[in-house]
Amino acid sequence: MDVLNKTIAVLPGDGIGPEVCREAVRVLEAVGEKFGHHFTFETHLMGACAIDATGEPLPTETLEACFEADAILLGAIGDPKYDNNPAAKVRPEQGLLKLRKSLGLFANVRPVTAYDVLLPHSPLKNDRIAGADMLFFRELTGGIYFGEKGRDENTAFDNCTYSRYEIARIAHLAFQAAQNRRKKLTLVDKANVLETSRLWREVVQEISLEYADVAVDYLFVDNAAMQLILNPRQFDVVLTENMFGDILSDEASVIAGSLGMLPSASVGERVALFEPIHGSYPQAKGKNIANPIAAILSAAMMLEHFELYQEAELMKQAVQEALDKKILTPDLAASGVAYGTEQVGTFIAYCVLDGA
Amino acid sequence: MDVLNKTIAVLPGDGIGPEVCREAVRVLEAVGEKFGHHFTFETHLMGACAIDATGEPLPTETLEACFEADAILLGAIGDPKYDNNPAAKVRPEQGLLKLRKSLGLFANVRPVTAYDVLLPHSPLKNDRIAGADMLFFRELTGGIYFGEKGRDENTAFDNCTYSRYEIARIAHLAFQAAQNRRKKLTLVDKANVLETSRLWREVVQEISLEYADVAVDYLFVDNAAMQLILNPRQFDVVLTENMFGDILSDEASVIAGSLGMLPSASVGERVALFEPIHGSYPQAKGKNIANPIAAILSAAMMLEHFELYQEAELMKQAVQEALDKKILTPDLAASGVAYGTEQVGTFIAYCVLDGA
Ligand SMILES: [Mg+2]
Ligand SMILES: [Mg+2]
Repeated sequence: MDVLNKTIAVLPGDGIGPEVCREAVRVLEAVGEKFGHHFTFETHLMGACAIDATGEPLPTETLEACFEADAILLGAIGDPKYDNNPAAKVRPEQGLLKLRKSLGLFANVRPVTAYDVLLPHSPLKNDRIAGADMLFFRELTGGIYFGEKGRDENTAFDNCTYSRYEIARIAHLAFQAAQNRRKKLTLVDKANVLETSRLWREVVQEISLEYADVAVDYLFVDNAAMQLILNPRQFDVVLTENMFGDILSDEASVIAGSLGMLPSASVGERVALFEPIHGSYPQAKGKNIANPIAAILSAAMMLEHFELYQEAELMKQAVQEALDKKILTPDLAASGVAYGTEQVGTFIAYCVLDGA
Repeated sequence: MDVLNKTIAVLPGDGIGPEVCREAVRVLEAVGEKFGHHFTFETHLMGACAIDATGEPLPTETLEACFEADAILLGAIGDPKYDNNPAAKVRPEQGLLKLRKSLGLFANVRPVTAYDVLLPHSPLKNDRIAGADMLFFRELTGGIYFGEKGRDENTAFDNCTYSRYEIARIAHLAFQAAQNRRKKLTLVDKANVLETSRLWREVVQEISLEYADVAVDYLFVDNAAMQLILNPRQFDVVLTENMFGDILSDEASVIAGSLGMLPSASVGERVALFEPIHGSYPQAKGKNIANPIAAILSAAMMLEHFELYQEAELMKQAVQEALDKKILTPDLAASGVAYGTEQVGTFIAYCVLDGA
């Protein structure tokens, strides 16, 4: 077995970010110990903590470290003192947007799985969601979040732009993923109203000819928002633009029973970034109640990215063991029998060391 | 009791639109007969049927008739031969967008209610949604759907613009509605990223000072997409911009157990428009299976708009009787005991004539 040396830039961020990152690092260290890999973790500032310390949400030092790392592990960013202040000039989210842009992270990849043991926690009827298993590809560096924007006294504007190139590169990734799954791809757009959506549909229709084994369908975003709840099993790979992906992948997260279960990868031209999809939940900060599993599963996606498939599989088995044995934080535990963030991470790390 | 004469422009539209409109008209005629009001119904073309007949989705004759009517009853518009063709120059939806703009229909108002008898039909666990009762105010004539848009060979763009005036006028309506309900208003935006959202938040914060009895909170749209499913009872009045409202109000519709239950009103500077929120469902066209209740409840909202509160209440009681007696179309009926569109409408009209 090959032994790897990997440098991982860790950006714990704000709120519960540092706590969940700590557990993901703990489990990665267990993987390293078990398999003889050497992971070097280098921690850097991003988000509100970086604004507080340096005035910048993404300090140059952090960006440079990310360029040089083999992968990036991010906790979460955001703080109400910036979010609720319309006059704030510098915002934590700008750091993440800039990092994605600088690294060319054009595709956000999010699996959403209905874990059997968590069905009771989902707000959806269990027979609707049992077996649901979908993979979102959200375009991450274009669209309205990155378009030209501006204000004057009485008006504001945001511009949404997409090019064929931006659409095609993520569409190829999504089609390739569909080929390795159930061979179905759903494009979500608003092609009955938006020009950008019509371009998405045009490019995806063209590219679909190269993937004859993948069935393609098209849903308007408002209908998709319904279908995700009405019949989530219909979805395999879901491809969509930046803002629609932001809304729909968060909506779909309710299927899993807890946001605290859902990992993500952001991939592109250079080093890739792995992060839980949940926010910084400032109200939970420092209370040892945050669910670290999303961060741990994000680290497992990182191992897959390193092509350490056996190691990633062991990590996912260790998570499943925590679920089966009910070593769970309060978001998932029955009342009165919850474990802390650190206990859950420690148990999963133990299972990795102990596992086959 | 005052006897009214009202002229109602009926735009049946496409797909199942004509069938559900016919039942709404049938029930309005029963109301007229019972109370001595005289409703005159004038039918006009809009949507795909209008394109087929005249080349225009909103013929001048239709628009002029709408200007002169006391209210407008719309069925549904849209046809796949236009929707799935990215090269189509004229689209059914352009007719509706132009009608909204011409009539200054800046506020779309949508109640979403979890009817007890329909809880088994909802994909959500019943204990999550029982008692949910919210009212959406969606801005309808601004934002990205109406912004400048364009294409060249390799790129496309859509622009989103909002002015203080556009935000303030719907915000006042939403605050006033909240005062007559549970006195809570939630603004949904994406103020951590979008300039237009920051303007929305700024204007709503200012206006909230005039409505000290209404509690205001702010949710990002991706979080709102989750919260609607996780805890729908938290919402009373939901205020949001055009596209977010399109997505979220459709998502929220799953709470009611069927799209076929949900009415809407679009109000503004001139004559108001009433329509079911469901689409034209071309695959159900002419099969006598479409649920007419959303169209009928839209007609009840029209009666409230005419300040015919007793008549509207009787209509809603008649609908409740159809629910209680299970006189329901296939979307809501147990298998094998479904009624047709026409039978449901006829039963509700009968209940109106027969009711107290
Ligand atoms: Mg999000
Ligand atoms: Mg819609």
